[in-house]
Amino acid sequence: MKSISINKLKDHYEEEVVVSGFVDNIRNLQWVQFVILKDNTNKVQITIEKSDENNRKMVELINNLTLESTVKVTGIIKESPKVKLNGMEIIPTKIEVTSRSEEELPFTYKNIEGVNLDTRLDYRFIDLRSDKNILMFQVQSAFIRYMREYLYQNNFIEIHTPKLIGAASESGAEVFEVKYFDRLAYLAQSPQFYKQMAMASGMNKIFEVAPSFRAENSNTSRHATEFTSFDVEFSYIDSYEDVMNLEAEMLTYALSKLKEEYNEKIKEVFGEEIIVPTLPFPTMTLEEVYKELEERYNYKVEENEKTDLTTEAERLTYKLAKEKYNHEFLFVVDYPAEKRAFYHMRNEEGKLQGYDLIWRGVEITTGAQREHRYEEICKNTESKGLKEDVQFYLEFFKYGCPPHGGFAIGIDRITMLLLNIPSVKESQFLFRGPNRLNP
Amino acid sequence: MKSISINKLKDHYEEEVVVSGFVDNIRNLQWVQFVILKDNTNKVQITIEKSDENNRKMVELINNLTLESTVKVTGIIKESPKVKLNGMEIIPTKIEVTSRSEEELPFTYKNIEGVNLDTRLDYRFIDLRSDKNILMFQVQSAFIRYMREYLYQNNFIEIHTPKLIGAASESGAEVFEVKYFDRLAYLAQSPQFYKQMAMASGMNKIFEVAPSFRAENSNTSRHATEFTSFDVEFSYIDSYEDVMNLEAEMLTYALSKLKEEYNEKIKEVFGEEIIVPTLPFPTMTLEEVYKELEERYNYKVEENEKTDLTTEAERLTYKLAKEKYNHEFLFVVDYPAEKRAFYHMRNEEGKLQGYDLIWRGVEITTGAQREHRYEEICKNTESKGLKEDVQFYLEFFKYGCPPHGGFAIGIDRITMLLLNIPSVKESQFLFRGPNRLNP
Repeated sequence: MKSISINKLKDHYEEEVVVSGFVDNIRNLQWVQFVILKDNTNKVQITIEKSDENNRKMVELINNLTLESTVKVTGIIKESPKVKLNGMEIIPTKIEVTSRSEEELPFTYKNIEGVNLDTRLDYRFIDLRSDKNILMFQVQSAFIRYMREYLYQNNFIEIHTPKLIGAASESGAEVFEVKYFDRLAYLAQSPQFYKQMAMASGMNKIFEVAPSFRAENSNTSRHATEFTSFDVEFSYIDSYEDVMNLEAEMLTYALSKLKEEYNEKIKEVFGEEIIVPTLPFPTMTLEEVYKELEERYNYKVEENEKTDLTTEAERLTYKLAKEKYNHEFLFVVDYPAEKRAFYHMRNEEGKLQGYDLIWRGVEITTGAQREHRYEEICKNTESKGLKEDVQFYLEFFKYGCPPHGGFAIGIDRITMLLLNIPSVKESQFLFRGPNRLNP
Repeated sequence: MKSISINKLKDHYEEEVVVSGFVDNIRNLQWVQFVILKDNTNKVQITIEKSDENNRKMVELINNLTLESTVKVTGIIKESPKVKLNGMEIIPTKIEVTSRSEEELPFTYKNIEGVNLDTRLDYRFIDLRSDKNILMFQVQSAFIRYMREYLYQNNFIEIHTPKLIGAASESGAEVFEVKYFDRLAYLAQSPQFYKQMAMASGMNKIFEVAPSFRAENSNTSRHATEFTSFDVEFSYIDSYEDVMNLEAEMLTYALSKLKEEYNEKIKEVFGEEIIVPTLPFPTMTLEEVYKELEERYNYKVEENEKTDLTTEAERLTYKLAKEKYNHEFLFVVDYPAEKRAFYHMRNEEGKLQGYDLIWRGVEITTGAQREHRYEEICKNTESKGLKEDVQFYLEFFKYGCPPHGGFAIGIDRITMLLLNIPSVKESQFLFRGPNRLNP
């Protein structure tokens, strides 16, 4: 007989069932033993009457059972209104220990108060067992699923570009070096160059969900040396506004589907609500943002800092977007072109054809129309002193390449923001930072 | 007005439309010019009458147009039975060159006869423009989409495990080294350890689609230093047969959906048919395979080679599976345990609880029930001399870990097999091998 998941038990009252899971709790009383079993869907109580002669072996087994061991239980599932946990219990006929946990755990997921984050990350496989973490990864998976669904409906295909590359890309700095037989390779900081190659290849509409690598020696709540990036690129656009519109629609679609599926569960476990945004998302120029932050909140920065949003300004835009637009998202445009990547298009007046998207006060995306004209992209790379490094990339634009644009979203970041997790260290399956490569 | 894709034109006869694409062909006759425009869905003819005074500017533009440039065309789409290409043509009012290809291309995708593979890979962005390649990546994307769909329906979630790891995994050999700040990191050869960590974390049913890295200095049609792996792992199984069954069902589901969507197109472009397998897939032991290969085809190998399938034996199993079972797939079981990875489970008699899956004569999967018992996995790693290297991994099994199993499928390999592509060099978006890191 096959194990069924605990959330399906209510369809089988009075039947014999098999359930498997972790031992979440044991209460050994004078006349009865209660074992709480937990899987990735719910928990259920197993009730063993000590007076029953047939139970002697099971009672003995429970006496020696350790918390967090895994067991397989065969028994009758009964509706029992007196049982606080979901009003049901299993009267077992057989319990089998499928793996035995050591007596002393470093901590249990139910008792992480006072356990420092490093210890939790050292034993991430125990930390991940909490209701919050189990739900977080179900929600993350569904978030990506629904973003993909939107793109499939719009005739995008998913591609897989190489992470090992022959030249240090984009900036030359902050790239991991790999010993590649008798030469060096580098780890891709993003699929940027290859997404654009797909456009030169006539693939038209593509996306990719894959790791990106950044050799940045920084420790913030939002940075990691490896993270999962959701990248989109498509051709025959008229301006970067087409890119903004697609991204806004994709996020709105995904959040509305997520709300349908997970809102109740998220409310219960995280105390958070999913807020489905309205379309279109509000847009402000960088200059307008600083002006309003000063007027509304007396937030002032030096003129020379106004070439980008400071972390504090970014944070304050959440308040601003909510007050001014009753919205959680804010597009910011008109960044100074000289501060932005060479592959973003500039128009005839030199104005940048790109944007950032801020959600709940944190930047989640940089997007742009790309420069697809060979002469212009050569000029841009020359002025940044990068032309040698990206020679292979410049080739993509010599033999026909349609106008195109795209964006990237950090998956760990949007998971963190959706569920109000304090740091990407906790929203990544396994965080990677300058001092963290294990487990 | 927004561009529409060429395959949608038939719904707009006599309307004004905008289409964008690559210039596939130009025929400049005495009285008329024909331009064939191509996007990722189809081709269409643009017809320009030279005698029409209003066309003077367009005629001039076409005179100077180069093949493989991209253009945006505004005009009336007309049903024209006399036009061989799909019985329609566009009478343009405006043509805009959105990117100009150089006069001399290294080759065109229509003329790759005699162009060696290395040149094609150097200019992969031109090579990819062919009908075959455009379709191949649409089909690959759909293949993955449908495998995911099957898994979502069975309550799997997708996770994203790190590719940067702190210890040389699995075997110690053939791992890429990364300079990681003041120490070394390694690139994951597979997500094996972390898939299993997800099981220890109570995640129950997971999959991942991500790059794997192998520092193998080998040049075959089936190997690459980086490839996309579709990995599945799930808990509470009773034996490796549960793993085989799930994989067979997933592939059958995906192939049947693929057939619905793409069979006609694949027949037209590749001359191949999608064959939906029947369930269950046939299974033979390694010993039986060698016995029948000898009996049927007089194929003999030395006894000491019979610990695995030789490449030739693998190839012959296609013939064998078709003749004996009328099937394209074949599970092979009972490999000698000592030749297999330490994390595959052995039963009480030491028999390996794993399998290979062969499709059309090529191994596409290794799968197994995993060893989840701490004492046993310690013994296995010790006997392979790996215990030090995988210390972090052994921890996963100390604090409760359910019985589990899984498998991995190489995406580039199944794409190659489905469409009868000669090599993964051509079924990867961008091939990576010992001598190939560019573009």
